[in-house]
Amino acid sequence: MSPDSPIGVFDSGIGGLTVLKEIKARLPHENIIYFGDTARVPYGIKSGETVTRFSREISEYLVGQGVKMLVVACNTASSVALPTLRDNYPLPVIGVLMPGAYAAARATKSERVGVIGTEGTVNSGAYARLIRNIRSGTMVFAHACPLFVPLVEEGRLSGPITRLAAEEYLAPLMLEDIDTLVLGCTHYPLLKETIAGVMGPEVELIDSAFETAREVERVLDKLDMLNKSGAPGNTRYAVSDAPERFKRIGERFLGYEVPEVEKVEL
Amino acid sequence: MSPDSPIGVFDSGIGGLTVLKEIKARLPHENIIYFGDTARVPYGIKSGETVTRFSREISEYLVGQGVKMLVVACNTASSVALPTLRDNYPLPVIGVLMPGAYAAARATKSERVGVIGTEGTVNSGAYARLIRNIRSGTMVFAHACPLFVPLVEEGRLSGPITRLAAEEYLAPLMLEDIDTLVLGCTHYPLLKETIAGVMGPEVELIDSAFETAREVERVLDKLDMLNKSGAPGNTRYAVSDAPERFKRIGERFLGYEVPEVEKVEL
Repeated sequence: MSPDSPIGVFDSGIGGLTVLKEIKARLPHENIIYFGDTARVPYGIKSGETVTRFSREISEYLVGQGVKMLVVACNTASSVALPTLRDNYPLPVIGVLMPGAYAAARATKSERVGVIGTEGTVNSGAYARLIRNIRSGTMVFAHACPLFVPLVEEGRLSGPITRLAAEEYLAPLMLEDIDTLVLGCTHYPLLKETIAGVMGPEVELIDSAFETAREVERVLDKLDMLNKSGAPGNTRYAVSDAPERFKRIGERFLGYEVPEVEKVEL
Repeated sequence: MSPDSPIGVFDSGIGGLTVLKEIKARLPHENIIYFGDTARVPYGIKSGETVTRFSREISEYLVGQGVKMLVVACNTASSVALPTLRDNYPLPVIGVLMPGAYAAARATKSERVGVIGTEGTVNSGAYARLIRNIRSGTMVFAHACPLFVPLVEEGRLSGPITRLAAEEYLAPLMLEDIDTLVLGCTHYPLLKETIAGVMGPEVELIDSAFETAREVERVLDKLDMLNKSGAPGNTRYAVSDAPERFKRIGERFLGYEVPEVEKVEL
């Protein structure tokens, strides 16, 4: 393992590409392997035990590819599987929750924070625990938005159905008078405009993808493991199923072409 | 294997319960084992190869439980995995497509039939092939409705979001002037009222769950394998993950209590 080794980034499917995009933008010299578990996507409705098992299988694969760091670019997996992964691999393991939780705790003035995510993330209560650990007086209101992921995957980033769903899901959080809202699912940054339109300009949106990329840089720098070759980094994409669908929808997430996608059976 | 042996019914998750319900209503003396692959749900966005592999693993389990028949209560799996299952098990294997296709071919007067389903089912083109094999002059128009499954699973069987989604998805089929519409996904019978409201009374809706139960009876009767004990049949439920969620949402599908759900790792 050396600074030239790739960073391993994984998600249940496509959503983690929002995190990949931020890492690539911030650290253009890093080599990266992205794995999307498209044979078993989504994780948000599955048990912690099962999601932890899936996350271990993927990490096994990425560690076998010689990665220097694991980035769990999936809120559901981050909320349940991090301790197991940290116990099993002698590598830095970065999840998407902690960076988002820190940013929210820093941002809130009223100490009233909202969190939106999948059923799995919301039911785990992980964000509320983390935010209150950082800033103990904070009230955290979490709400699951099950339609947001299929809406994004269908490319409905705006329009009447998406707007209506956002209004319904966000109404209880508006009533709680929050001043900060964590986008607690990697798909949600794509709905940022619609969500901001409903919440209004007084509510700050926390994009965990952006915050996670910052954390990746901070940790690699501290360990003196940043790739300083100066050459443009190389990104490899692997999925457990349906590479063409990943490529097609993934390009919408990244805003640029996904060159080649390898299918890997775990 | 005897007439007392159970019928094995499986689906990617919860949707197949609409088929189970119809089988139980029609054949109350049958013993049944229902398996929902909730660790890997949904199948609709996954490749034929992967869905076939999953279907074989489940069939292996059900055959190990001594079932006398396999009912593939999932449109996606029925559209890709039936030949493999029929080749591998010396049992009658019933899918949900053929019964729905026959009913549609019988029902249409204008020979213009619509089909709605998941991406996987629609992309397979299986319904169109089957319907045209039965009634060759028929025009078949298929359209994927990716939001319908999450809408049903969230319990949004009616209301403005569901209505709006139905209007959008069904508009191209209305333009084709169909007189028959196949509900080509096991979740969709729960949206029957909303779909009928959009399509109007001139369009006949084909419920594959109902048609499949008829086919199960016909085949068992022909093989002299109907359970004639006269005692009420017993139903067992098994899933690959999250039994509580299955129980909670499953009761909405069945309209009655799901007693106990076993978790089985495949």
